[in-house]
Amino acid sequence: MTIQLYGFWRSNAAFRVRVALALKKLSFEEIEIDILSGRQFDAEYAEVNAEHVVPTFVHDGHRIFQSLAIMEYLDDLQPEPRLLPADAKERAYARSLALVSAADAHPLVIPRVRKYLGEVLSADAAAIDAWVRHWTVEGLATYERLLSRRPADPFALGTAPTIADICIAGQIVLAELHGLDLAAFPGVAALGKRCFELPAFANAHPFRQPHYLAKKH
Amino acid sequence: MTIQLYGFWRSNAAFRVRVALALKKLSFEEIEIDILSGRQFDAEYAEVNAEHVVPTFVHDGHRIFQSLAIMEYLDDLQPEPRLLPADAKERAYARSLALVSAADAHPLVIPRVRKYLGEVLSADAAAIDAWVRHWTVEGLATYERLLSRRPADPFALGTAPTIADICIAGQIVLAELHGLDLAAFPGVAALGKRCFELPAFANAHPFRQPHYLAKKH
Repeated sequence: MTIQLYGFWRSNAAFRVRVALALKKLSFEEIEIDILSGRQFDAEYAEVNAEHVVPTFVHDGHRIFQSLAIMEYLDDLQPEPRLLPADAKERAYARSLALVSAADAHPLVIPRVRKYLGEVLSADAAAIDAWVRHWTVEGLATYERLLSRRPADPFALGTAPTIADICIAGQIVLAELHGLDLAAFPGVAALGKRCFELPAFANAHPFRQPHYLAKKH
Repeated sequence: MTIQLYGFWRSNAAFRVRVALALKKLSFEEIEIDILSGRQFDAEYAEVNAEHVVPTFVHDGHRIFQSLAIMEYLDDLQPEPRLLPADAKERAYARSLALVSAADAHPLVIPRVRKYLGEVLSADAAAIDAWVRHWTVEGLATYERLLSRRPADPFALGTAPTIADICIAGQIVLAELHGLDLAAFPGVAALGKRCFELPAFANAHPFRQPHYLAKKH
């Protein structure tokens, strides 16, 4: 089995898939698509991914896009360790938690949206930053409310990390990238600490990626 | 089995779940939460849904939120007719297609985002409308590219409608709500026509909901 991942060090969706692959102990080659420079719109990559987004996952030549679809596929490809719980109600809760970031909070802060705010709505850098922080905090606050109702023990769904923890960790990464303090979200912060103690999460972090490190930020 | 759905006539995510329930021939009671008036933030509903969004699906008292998680759960609850294909690669493609609208296009045009554009960024009605049209067209254009690579035959994944068709139909509903012409997207338009010929889709349309009709628009 050969796996390639078209990703980007800073892409939150690519982060999710890197964690999932690491939890499954599946090795892969990552191909960097610089979405901050608009490389996702290049003709060559547009052929790979008709939505012009990262990541694209390639398994023995078969392409899959959208991080949640990829993670679900990984559970089909290699069931253990499970990224989704075996029980249907628990699986539904894991998906709901994952979608809070993947379908509600994160889509609002991606590069093409920030670009539109600046170029079309003439928002300045401070206004764009405030936008990103606002929606990132909304996601964190939702997770905090959910985790206060059902505390992580030690992970969101129980003993092992699932797609829920992966997406919550991704939301924490967004907070870090935009200088947000997690003090108001103690449940989220504690869960994040447990996640990033695991090498699968830590090594997938944007700041640990070769292309980030090569830039010597 | 008793099913309740906290929804709203205009909510695209609630539309998806109404279609899914109808395809499964599962009867349900819909409880209207007027998200245009901000009723999703009321304390009573916040207790039902910690994310303050619609829909919330309630199955024998058990609550599930996020439309994709709900549709996946419906397939667990009552497998036939399947909303997701049996084959893993096909299931992944169905999820990818569904997420184009659910996780990328639709989140950008929901009421709380339009409200922020107006109240915080001082965008006027025309600018907000242009924003909504821009991201709605982006979703339609992505679907058109995908359907040109793999034409619907007759539905996106083959003989029967899946979550992919439900989300594509939802994207068409967004286009209708915002006065967009589908002429530039013939593959999407043709698939939408086939979907809305089915009562499950037609009866779930926002303009067929009691609360919309009661307002005599």
